[in-house]
Amino acid sequence: MYQLLDGINSPYDIKSLSEAELVDLCQEIRDYIIECCSHNPGHLGSSLGAVEIAVAVHRVFDAPKDKIVWDVGHQAYAHKILTGRREDFLHNRERGSLSGFPKRSESEYDAFGAGHASTSISAALGMAVADRMQGCSAHHIAIIGDGAMTGGLAFEGLNNAGSIDNDMLVILNDNRISIDMATGALHKHLIKVTTSHGYNRFKKNVWELLGEGRFRDFTSALVSTVKKFILHDSSDVSMFDALGFRYFGPIDGNNLHEMISTLDRLKAIPGPKLLHVVTTKGKGYKPAEDNPSVWHAPGSFDPETGRLLKSSQGADRYQVVFGETVTELARRDNRIVSVTPAMLRGSSLNIMQKEMPERVFDVGIAEGHAVTFSAGLAASGMLPVCNIYSTFMQRAYDNVIHDVALQKLKVIFCLDRAGLVGEDGATHQGVFDLPAFRSVPNLAIASPCNEIELRNLLYSAASDEYPATIIRYPRACGVGMDWRNAGFERIPLGKARLLHEGSRVAILSIGPVGNRCAEAVEEFGKKGREILHYDMRFLKPFDMEAMEDACRKAEVIVTVEDGAVKGGLFGEVCEYVASHAYNIKVVPFGVPDKFIEQGSLTQQYADCGMDLKNIVEKVADFFDN
Amino acid sequence: MYQLLDGINSPYDIKSLSEAELVDLCQEIRDYIIECCSHNPGHLGSSLGAVEIAVAVHRVFDAPKDKIVWDVGHQAYAHKILTGRREDFLHNRERGSLSGFPKRSESEYDAFGAGHASTSISAALGMAVADRMQGCSAHHIAIIGDGAMTGGLAFEGLNNAGSIDNDMLVILNDNRISIDMATGALHKHLIKVTTSHGYNRFKKNVWELLGEGRFRDFTSALVSTVKKFILHDSSDVSMFDALGFRYFGPIDGNNLHEMISTLDRLKAIPGPKLLHVVTTKGKGYKPAEDNPSVWHAPGSFDPETGRLLKSSQGADRYQVVFGETVTELARRDNRIVSVTPAMLRGSSLNIMQKEMPERVFDVGIAEGHAVTFSAGLAASGMLPVCNIYSTFMQRAYDNVIHDVALQKLKVIFCLDRAGLVGEDGATHQGVFDLPAFRSVPNLAIASPCNEIELRNLLYSAASDEYPATIIRYPRACGVGMDWRNAGFERIPLGKARLLHEGSRVAILSIGPVGNRCAEAVEEFGKKGREILHYDMRFLKPFDMEAMEDACRKAEVIVTVEDGAVKGGLFGEVCEYVASHAYNIKVVPFGVPDKFIEQGSLTQQYADCGMDLKNIVEKVADFFDN
Repeated sequence: MYQLLDGINSPYDIKSLSEAELVDLCQEIRDYIIECCSHNPGHLGSSLGAVEIAVAVHRVFDAPKDKIVWDVGHQAYAHKILTGRREDFLHNRERGSLSGFPKRSESEYDAFGAGHASTSISAALGMAVADRMQGCSAHHIAIIGDGAMTGGLAFEGLNNAGSIDNDMLVILNDNRISIDMATGALHKHLIKVTTSHGYNRFKKNVWELLGEGRFRDFTSALVSTVKKFILHDSSDVSMFDALGFRYFGPIDGNNLHEMISTLDRLKAIPGPKLLHVVTTKGKGYKPAEDNPSVWHAPGSFDPETGRLLKSSQGADRYQVVFGETVTELARRDNRIVSVTPAMLRGSSLNIMQKEMPERVFDVGIAEGHAVTFSAGLAASGMLPVCNIYSTFMQRAYDNVIHDVALQKLKVIFCLDRAGLVGEDGATHQGVFDLPAFRSVPNLAIASPCNEIELRNLLYSAASDEYPATIIRYPRACGVGMDWRNAGFERIPLGKARLLHEGSRVAILSIGPVGNRCAEAVEEFGKKGREILHYDMRFLKPFDMEAMEDACRKAEVIVTVEDGAVKGGLFGEVCEYVASHAYNIKVVPFGVPDKFIEQGSLTQQYADCGMDLKNIVEKVADFFDN
Repeated sequence: MYQLLDGINSPYDIKSLSEAELVDLCQEIRDYIIECCSHNPGHLGSSLGAVEIAVAVHRVFDAPKDKIVWDVGHQAYAHKILTGRREDFLHNRERGSLSGFPKRSESEYDAFGAGHASTSISAALGMAVADRMQGCSAHHIAIIGDGAMTGGLAFEGLNNAGSIDNDMLVILNDNRISIDMATGALHKHLIKVTTSHGYNRFKKNVWELLGEGRFRDFTSALVSTVKKFILHDSSDVSMFDALGFRYFGPIDGNNLHEMISTLDRLKAIPGPKLLHVVTTKGKGYKPAEDNPSVWHAPGSFDPETGRLLKSSQGADRYQVVFGETVTELARRDNRIVSVTPAMLRGSSLNIMQKEMPERVFDVGIAEGHAVTFSAGLAASGMLPVCNIYSTFMQRAYDNVIHDVALQKLKVIFCLDRAGLVGEDGATHQGVFDLPAFRSVPNLAIASPCNEIELRNLLYSAASDEYPATIIRYPRACGVGMDWRNAGFERIPLGKARLLHEGSRVAILSIGPVGNRCAEAVEEFGKKGREILHYDMRFLKPFDMEAMEDACRKAEVIVTVEDGAVKGGLFGEVCEYVASHAYNIKVVPFGVPDKFIEQGSLTQQYADCGMDLKNIVEKVADFFDN
């Protein structure tokens, strides 16, 4: 029972509450988010920090007429709860319920969907320009974290917005933490701004000035005078100024009164404006405030004690295998350095960082730079291991082509979170990497089937035999191998592994989905139906001997991959079969040509027909017919 | 005969010349560039503007030990001429000779290759970090234009460089023009800086100070004091300051003495530095100075008169068809707006801009933003036509997936310069778009075969039947149709066009390469060999009726596309044939799995086996066997 929150069914309902009641409402929203996230995991920390921003924005502006664009979107839980989705939030990130991110098709209040960072300014500018051209006087608000602000797209948006006639408001939600600790020069700059005495003078003098209501009939001239005064002591903020934005702040983004009164006044000021607000990630929940990186997306926890409820899984995650192995390889080879765009913990590069901090580069949310920086490292003789989530690698597609592959520079790319990703849903599916990179020359593309294969691929990719290599693996646990004691074994470039001899039906799989196939093959074997099964390991170079073997022995070839079938492994196999005019039927298992919404991994595999049951049924059909 | 230049065979040779001689050398280099480019077209304007930068950098620094990274690279002709490639420059951009851009495999002086913008800072930072880790004390210099500086990647590089311990020098070559006039807030900011009296005070006071040699034993503390003084009147430059760079300048980048003495002094200053130099695009050649956009890459010209030698071609270029058609459509439909990332003239959107400037948005070199901004425009009810060169669209791959396709927003993407591009070479080939986007849901992908098909595709894509649509076409002339009087006809989404009935052999082509096929089909027809030929028009949705028709009638299906065959049209056709177990041989014509170097289009087509002669020979084989 939430006294105030239970009565909020749209943002309209908060307009009649007093500010004192709104402060209580914020507390209730926080309690509700903590309660829900404790048993239904989600992005806790960012959303706790942005509760007052959400309440203030909805108090002051009139959504959905006014367009509120939440960058990345995992700070938007309070926004979802306030906009008619309070009950559904109990099933946040579940199949058929709410997406964990803003989503246009889910609510008219979600002006623009986002799961990737740094899009909000560009999108809000587009809307602002379009609305103005159509004579609509809506307000346009982009809410962006300091982490997302380091993405080049945000800069491109600012640079364009600052030179186009529009009235948009950018709220820079500065919690000093993107997912791990924020890095980069901009971050240092923001800290300097908030600790300069301009901050305090601003609060004391200017707030008093604003409080007297002089903003009422604001003219452009007055704005610039006041702004000049505001900024007198903080010339450092002119980075935004240089980009044509009027900078305001910093203010305390967790102080509701301050937020509301500031937004109320900024509403009337024309032109592009940036309000810098400082918030506490995890605000209001001590464990999360104390350790914001861990509590960014903590999984299940006990809300009373703050104890994290680890799911007890036997096998290590591929992330751990990667993190420990790359550290081990780096110990042996001092050319090895690693690069991550703000995913130090997520990728497990914190393991290497702990042991050799000077050889790990967290470049901030900046995937394009991560790749071109790696290319530069390689050009001067280092061997960079650049770890980027598959879905975020879409941001660096050109950099891989133009800066790495074209120049034959040796970078090892590790694409984490490849394949279906479960609850994060459509924005985060890592399913386009295989088709996108298969057509790029000078690259090797591999995916391991288990922990030891990942280890050996990393080890092998570092050898001179390999060109720039993409190694993709999912966010998942391995099969439970004793990989730490396995040593290293060189995998010949482009060589598949025969898992089972057979005929009539051949399965060619790539990646850990091959384990499911191996189970199926075993079942069939028990019934005397021997299936030929190759773990292809490489999509590029493709093992033509294994391919030819399959063509000679089988009437049906089944391809299995955790990614888009169009153009992926299925595409490669079909190109071989059809260009050799084999009379073979090729049947794909993988992700069909549609975006896959949030849900459990099990549900998503089943939806795509990649579950064991479906594979077995389909394969049985081939034997029966 | 060039008195000084003829003796320059490596940068070492310029170290012994006096500064007066170097000034003469600059003039000779200019004359030589103009002479060469007048009959062998290239990027004239940028390279003329950067002559003194190149001479000064090679005078002061010691390449190849010191790493000089030229952003984009079409400003680097003087650099090429100075670094042992003077003679070869006569054959600039020709097959087997020099690339028009820096290229690692061409010369040890080309520290990092580039044809796309904004990569230099990231790359130079990587090298600087790597060299430092290996105990190498080289200098690292990134030379970047003000146009390229608006790219998000440059910002990501600055943000990271400003927070990592390194001594790199960024030279911001500010000619106020990227390719067309530079746009955006940063550009305005730079103008403000160079016109403020800080500029003059800087020159008068500080240069005198520097001149007295006080820089000799520079300590970090002294630097910051001097910098404070330098910057006293130009706090606006602190955009770079905010990013952790020490800002110096602006100085006259065409004044050799100033350039050399400044670089000499900056050499000793530690930490990340940015030197802002102002140059004149086309410097030293009056026609180019007067009209820098036209003279960016002017084609052949008479060096004496400055008269541009237009090749007299009968047919209009696809660019003109696009430019006039989009304007015509915009007249009828006021939802239509257009967006270009700094390619206003190249794309012919200047035609629309002339008539309705408020509906054309040149967002600067910022492809990612161009797409997400278009998504925002669409989200608020406009119908954006976003024109991006195919090769540059690689920069916005994620934006198309995450911001447009996933949200089912209606944007019409026109991918200009699709397919092989001739003299611009490997960095600019537009050959990956078909495979990269074929696997993305909710998109249509089309390519017209001639002028009227381009018109009708644009017209049709604007209708509600079409989702977000990619229309790709080459930099080329059409077939000579009277398209201006053709009216408009709706092309059903995903519908191929039957060009010729036949059997045994079927040709499925997409795009203007289909015209070459039609010629071949006609030749065969004369000999009584009737080939089935479809102009597929769409790669997605793919016309399954046409596909099925081909499978029923033919034993061999030939696919022809101006792009990477892996995963493109060839991939789509093979997937159909193999998943239906047709006993048909599929033979691809298109770009093989390698990067295609510079040369004439005719040479490149022949190299890829896409010339008419080869197509005819191969097809004849099918009939004979």
